[in-house]
Amino acid sequence: MLELSPTELLQELKPIFYPESIAIVGVSTSRPNAASGWVSGLVHAGFLGSIYPVNPRGGEMLGLKIYPNLTAIPGHVDYAIISIPRQIVPRILEECAAKKVKFAHFFTAGYSELGDTTSRSLEIEMIQKARQGGFHIIGPNGAGSYCPESKIPYAPTGLMGESGTVSFLTQSGGIGNTFIGSGIARGIKFSKGISFGNGVDLDGTDLLRYLGADPKTSIIGAYFEGAGNGRQLLNAMREVSKAKPIVMLKGGRTEVGSTVVKSHTGSLAVSSAIWSTALKQAGAIEVRTIEELVDTLLIFQQLGRWHGRNIAIASGFAGGGGGIAVAAGDICSEAGLTVPQLSSQTLEKLTKILGLVGSILHNPVDVSQADSKPATLEEAFEAILSDPVIDMLIIQEDIGILLVQSTKEDVDTINSSLINLKNKYNKPIVIVMPPSINEPERLQTEHQLAQGSIPVFPSMERAARAISRLSQYSGPDASYRG
Amino acid sequence: MLELSPTELLQELKPIFYPESIAIVGVSTSRPNAASGWVSGLVHAGFLGSIYPVNPRGGEMLGLKIYPNLTAIPGHVDYAIISIPRQIVPRILEECAAKKVKFAHFFTAGYSELGDTTSRSLEIEMIQKARQGGFHIIGPNGAGSYCPESKIPYAPTGLMGESGTVSFLTQSGGIGNTFIGSGIARGIKFSKGISFGNGVDLDGTDLLRYLGADPKTSIIGAYFEGAGNGRQLLNAMREVSKAKPIVMLKGGRTEVGSTVVKSHTGSLAVSSAIWSTALKQAGAIEVRTIEELVDTLLIFQQLGRWHGRNIAIASGFAGGGGGIAVAAGDICSEAGLTVPQLSSQTLEKLTKILGLVGSILHNPVDVSQADSKPATLEEAFEAILSDPVIDMLIIQEDIGILLVQSTKEDVDTINSSLINLKNKYNKPIVIVMPPSINEPERLQTEHQLAQGSIPVFPSMERAARAISRLSQYSGPDASYRG
Repeated sequence: MLELSPTELLQELKPIFYPESIAIVGVSTSRPNAASGWVSGLVHAGFLGSIYPVNPRGGEMLGLKIYPNLTAIPGHVDYAIISIPRQIVPRILEECAAKKVKFAHFFTAGYSELGDTTSRSLEIEMIQKARQGGFHIIGPNGAGSYCPESKIPYAPTGLMGESGTVSFLTQSGGIGNTFIGSGIARGIKFSKGISFGNGVDLDGTDLLRYLGADPKTSIIGAYFEGAGNGRQLLNAMREVSKAKPIVMLKGGRTEVGSTVVKSHTGSLAVSSAIWSTALKQAGAIEVRTIEELVDTLLIFQQLGRWHGRNIAIASGFAGGGGGIAVAAGDICSEAGLTVPQLSSQTLEKLTKILGLVGSILHNPVDVSQADSKPATLEEAFEAILSDPVIDMLIIQEDIGILLVQSTKEDVDTINSSLINLKNKYNKPIVIVMPPSINEPERLQTEHQLAQGSIPVFPSMERAARAISRLSQYSGPDASYRG
Repeated sequence: MLELSPTELLQELKPIFYPESIAIVGVSTSRPNAASGWVSGLVHAGFLGSIYPVNPRGGEMLGLKIYPNLTAIPGHVDYAIISIPRQIVPRILEECAAKKVKFAHFFTAGYSELGDTTSRSLEIEMIQKARQGGFHIIGPNGAGSYCPESKIPYAPTGLMGESGTVSFLTQSGGIGNTFIGSGIARGIKFSKGISFGNGVDLDGTDLLRYLGADPKTSIIGAYFEGAGNGRQLLNAMREVSKAKPIVMLKGGRTEVGSTVVKSHTGSLAVSSAIWSTALKQAGAIEVRTIEELVDTLLIFQQLGRWHGRNIAIASGFAGGGGGIAVAAGDICSEAGLTVPQLSSQTLEKLTKILGLVGSILHNPVDVSQADSKPATLEEAFEAILSDPVIDMLIIQEDIGILLVQSTKEDVDTINSSLINLKNKYNKPIVIVMPPSINEPERLQTEHQLAQGSIPVFPSMERAARAISRLSQYSGPDASYRG
C-alpha cells in the first residue's frame, strides 16, 4: 500500500485515468493482436492525448507512426500498455525506466498465477525494476485502465460507454469485460475503472482509496479474488464506504472457485464466511453474481440514496396483471420489502379510475382495466404515487404484450409520463420489463427510461433484490446494514 | 373433477385443443376489443376450422360474417370464446345450451374473485346452466386454450410459436402471456396450454390429468393459485409426475401475494410450507419465479432426461476467461452441482492445444488462449467432451466480446461445431450467453443453438439452477428428489 494521504494519492495516480500520452507496446501490423486492438480502440474512441504504438520493426498503423522502442518516442509517456511475451518483459522494464514512464500496465500474463518458482522470481524482478526505475506497475495479468471521460476504452475489445459516476476495480479483466458490457447495455455510466490482475505493485487497497478520494466517483463496484493485505483493505473499505457504497463480488467462495483463483491471479483463498463477515463489518455490500453486481450499481446510480420503506407495485400495464401482481407480491415479500395497504383515499381514486370488475385494488395493484390507455394509466400511477404512505413504485411493464395492444407512440407517451410523475412526486419508479419477442423495442424503451433515471430490471426477482440492497445501505445511518 | 379414465378424458376434452369450429362472442367492428383480437389472431395464425364472430349488430370483419347470436351460426360450434360484460352472460349461457356448444370459455371476469354475494351466485348460476345444457365451462376469468398444432394463438394478444412437447396450465392469463412470450423467445415449443382462471367447472385436476394422458405432451408447466380439491390435485400430480416432469409455480406464497390471490381467482390461501411439502411428495418440481419456470421447462425440452453427474465448465471463449471461470465454479458449486477434476489425459491434451501460460487448466477451464479461433476452440471442447469423467459441458459464450474479435461467420462456425460435438459424444452442452450491447446477434445465435437442442441461459446462476433441477428429477428412479 502506498503511504499517501487521499489528496496525494489522487495526484499520484491521476495519469492512470487522465494520461497525456499512451504508448502501446507489442502492436503488430501483420495480424490482429491485443496491443493493436488497444491502438484501434483509442483511435476510434477519440483519445485526445498522444498515442504511440511500439514494435521493433517500426512501420505505421491507422495513420500513426510505430516506434521501434519506448525510448525512441519523442514526447513523454504517462501510461504504457504492454502486451508482449513475458521473456521480453525485462528489456521493456529497462526501457520504461529509461523513458521515465509513469505507469506501466502489463496485460502480459504468466507470473505468480502459474505457481512455479521461475514465474514467481520474474514477478519479483518486475517489482524491483519498477521501484528502481521510479515507476508504478498495473498488473501484470490485468486489462488496465478504463475512463470514458478521457476516451480510454476498456481492454483490447474497445468497450466504451458514456461518462458517469460509477467506478470499479477488478482483479479479472474478463469479469470487467462482461460487467462493463452488460453495464453499458443497462444504462450504467462509468467514471473510471481499473483491472489490476495480480496487483503486484498498485494493489486493490491503493486503487480503492483512490476511487474513495476521487470526486467524480459516487459508487464503487469491485471484483476481488484475494485480499492482498487484508487488514489494510478492510480499513480502506471502512473509510470509503462511509461516503460511497462499495458493491463487492468475491471470486473463489467455494473449493472449485478457489482452485481456479490460485492459477488465475495467484491470490490465496480466504474462507467465504470470513470474507462475508469482514465485508459486512467494513460496510461493503456483498453480491454473489455479475448480474447482481450490475443490478446493484444500476439502482444506486439511478436512485442515489433512498430513505423510504413502503413500496407500491403495479402490474397489468398491458392487461392480465392479476397473476403478475400475485407473483410480484410474493417475490417482494420474500426479498424482505414492505408492500403495505394503500390508503383508503387512494383505493377510492383507483376504483373511480379503473372500475371494480376485473381490477385488483390492493397493493400490488392490477391496472389491467386501464386497457393500456396512456391517460388512464397515468391517472392510476399518479393516484398511487400521491399516496403519502408510498415511497416507491415498481411497475411491471411487459412490452411484448403492450405492443400488441398499443402503438409504439402510446408506449413512449406512457414512459414519458412515468419520468414526469417520478420528478413531480420525487419518489423513485422502478420498471420490470421481461425480455420478450420484441427485444429491439424493449431495449430502446429501456434506454429511454434509463436516461430519465428510471432503472429497468429484466425480472421482479432482480429488481426486488437490488431495492433491498439500496434500502439497507441508505438507512438513517447511511451505511450498509445487510 | 370429471370421473373419467385417462383415455376417456383425452376424448372428452379434445375439442378444447382440436376444435373444428370456434365462435367468438363479443367482437366489435367499431373499436378494438379482446374478442376482436382473438378473431384476428385466429385468422392470422391460419386456424384451419371455421371461425364465427358473434355480435348482435351483425356485419363483417376480416372477410368473415358476424353472426347476431350463437344459434344463428350455420355449422356446429365446438368451442366458444366469450368476452362480454357479465350481465349478458346468462343469455349467452342459454345460447350455448341451445346451440349444443361443447366448451364455453369465459374470458369475462367479475365472479367469485370479487368476493361479494352477487358475484358468487352468478358463478353458481353459470355452473348450473352448463350442467343443464350439457356443456363444459373454461374459466371464467381465464385466457383459454393455446395450441400451435391447431393454429390457435394464445389470448387476444395472438401469441403464436412453433409446435412442440411442452404443455402448461395456468390459473392466470397474464402469467400465461408473460410465460409464453418469454418461452417462445427462448426456444420453448409448446404442444398446448390452457388458462383456466377461476376453474369453476373444468379445474386444474381435470386439465392436469388430460395433459398427463396426452401423447403429445412430454413436459408440463403449471401456475396455480389455489388447489381446488387439494387431495385430488395431489393424487393426479403423483400419477402424472411418474412419466412427465411437472414444474410448478405457486402464486400466493406470502401474505401480500395471497391477499391478491383472493381477489384474482378467488382461490383460498394454502400455507407455502404445506404446498412445498405436498408438491415434493407428489413428485412435482417447485419453482419460485416465472423465469425459473421458463428455464426449467427449457432444459427439460432440450436435454430430455439426464442421468449424468459430472460437469465441465469452459469460459474465455472470447478471451479473459479466468474470472468468469472462478465465478462459474463458485455458482455451480453453490447450486450443488459436481465440478470434478478432469482426467490427466484431458489436461495433457488441453496443454497441447492451449499452451500453459495464461490458460487455466482446471475445471472450470479457461480457453482464452484459443484466441477465439474456431478450430482451436473445437479441439479444446472435443478434448473436454471426450473425457470419460465428464457428463455435461457448460460454456460461457460472451457474444458481445466474441464479436469484437471474430466475424459473425466464425461465431456461426463455432456454434455449429458445438451442435456436432454434442451429437457426436451424446453429452449435453449448455450455453450461458449474457445479454450485451450486441443483442440482435445474441438472439439470432440463441435461436440457432436452440434449434440444435442446446439450451441457452442468460446467466450462469440460472443455468446452474435449471441443471440442478434436471439432475434431481432425472436420477436413477426417474422421479424428482428435490
